[in-house]
Amino acid sequence: MAKDRSPRLRARPLDRPFHVVLVDPEIPQNTGNIARLCGATSSPLHLVGRLGFRIDEKSVRRAGVDYWHLVKIEQHLSLAHFQNAHPTARLRLFTAVAKKSIFDEVFEPGDALVFGKESSGLDDELLAAHPDSCIAIPTLGAVRSLNLANAAGIALFEALRQVGAFSKTFLEGT
Amino acid sequence: MAKDRSPRLRARPLDRPFHVVLVDPEIPQNTGNIARLCGATSSPLHLVGRLGFRIDEKSVRRAGVDYWHLVKIEQHLSLAHFQNAHPTARLRLFTAVAKKSIFDEVFEPGDALVFGKESSGLDDELLAAHPDSCIAIPTLGAVRSLNLANAAGIALFEALRQVGAFSKTFLEGT
Repeated sequence: MAKDRSPRLRARPLDRPFHVVLVDPEIPQNTGNIARLCGATSSPLHLVGRLGFRIDEKSVRRAGVDYWHLVKIEQHLSLAHFQNAHPTARLRLFTAVAKKSIFDEVFEPGDALVFGKESSGLDDELLAAHPDSCIAIPTLGAVRSLNLANAAGIALFEALRQVGAFSKTFLEGT
Repeated sequence: MAKDRSPRLRARPLDRPFHVVLVDPEIPQNTGNIARLCGATSSPLHLVGRLGFRIDEKSVRRAGVDYWHLVKIEQHLSLAHFQNAHPTARLRLFTAVAKKSIFDEVFEPGDALVFGKESSGLDDELLAAHPDSCIAIPTLGAVRSLNLANAAGIALFEALRQVGAFSKTFLEGT
């Protein structure tokens, strides 16, 4: 289609990108959408712990995810392993039960945006050990939580906005 | 689980909410995620034109969408019908080929955030007729577009942020 060949509105990748960290993700469609989000923002994606699905090339292709190879993906046995590999990345722990809003948080380039599993979020022990790192996306309606991929998108784009990633945009052709 | 009973970070709904408008949506999972987003932000959801799926109570329930009844949903035959029903809502047309970024746009309460079908976006004729209303979410990576539900989430929360929806948050119990 014509639109695929049209110039797109683009911004420059950060020198120190945000890390997107999914702990024990359960639903492959969410991880697929978040991978697309990471590919669209040059953000490394970290898959931590137990995955509820396969991510080998064949399985991903069969699921219709045609951008997987465009995303920098790392797997880690645990969050501690992620931290060992990326010791300077501040953990920002996303949880529905935090007191601090993402819009009151001050993100820094290189931060790790950490999301828990769809069914129950991040472990209570982890949240209790890092109370100042817990942040939430406020809701203002009858539904009180968001889909995981939507939450990751809202958080990542707010973090990118805050650090000035979109201050200069430009049109780029194919 | 305990977390479901914990207080959540909340904000007050807008007096004049944003309208989320999907024209000819094709993929039910995306519309489901966007309905959840609308339910979480007290934003009316408008389904315009031809739907690629059924939205009767039984079909929605079978798809595991358990928040559909919490969302204010209107169906319209066409975008003109939507405009007749909501004459004061400014159309903000989301397209990958716009020159203006959502972060340079100034949203106003009551705006209609309009998204096209997953496969090809909004009609070229519509975009050409409203050049000043076209806005894009910039990307900065190898992938140059976002999932529809993710785009809607990023746009809606940026619009809500701009109009001060999150300036006062509070913890609300169950």
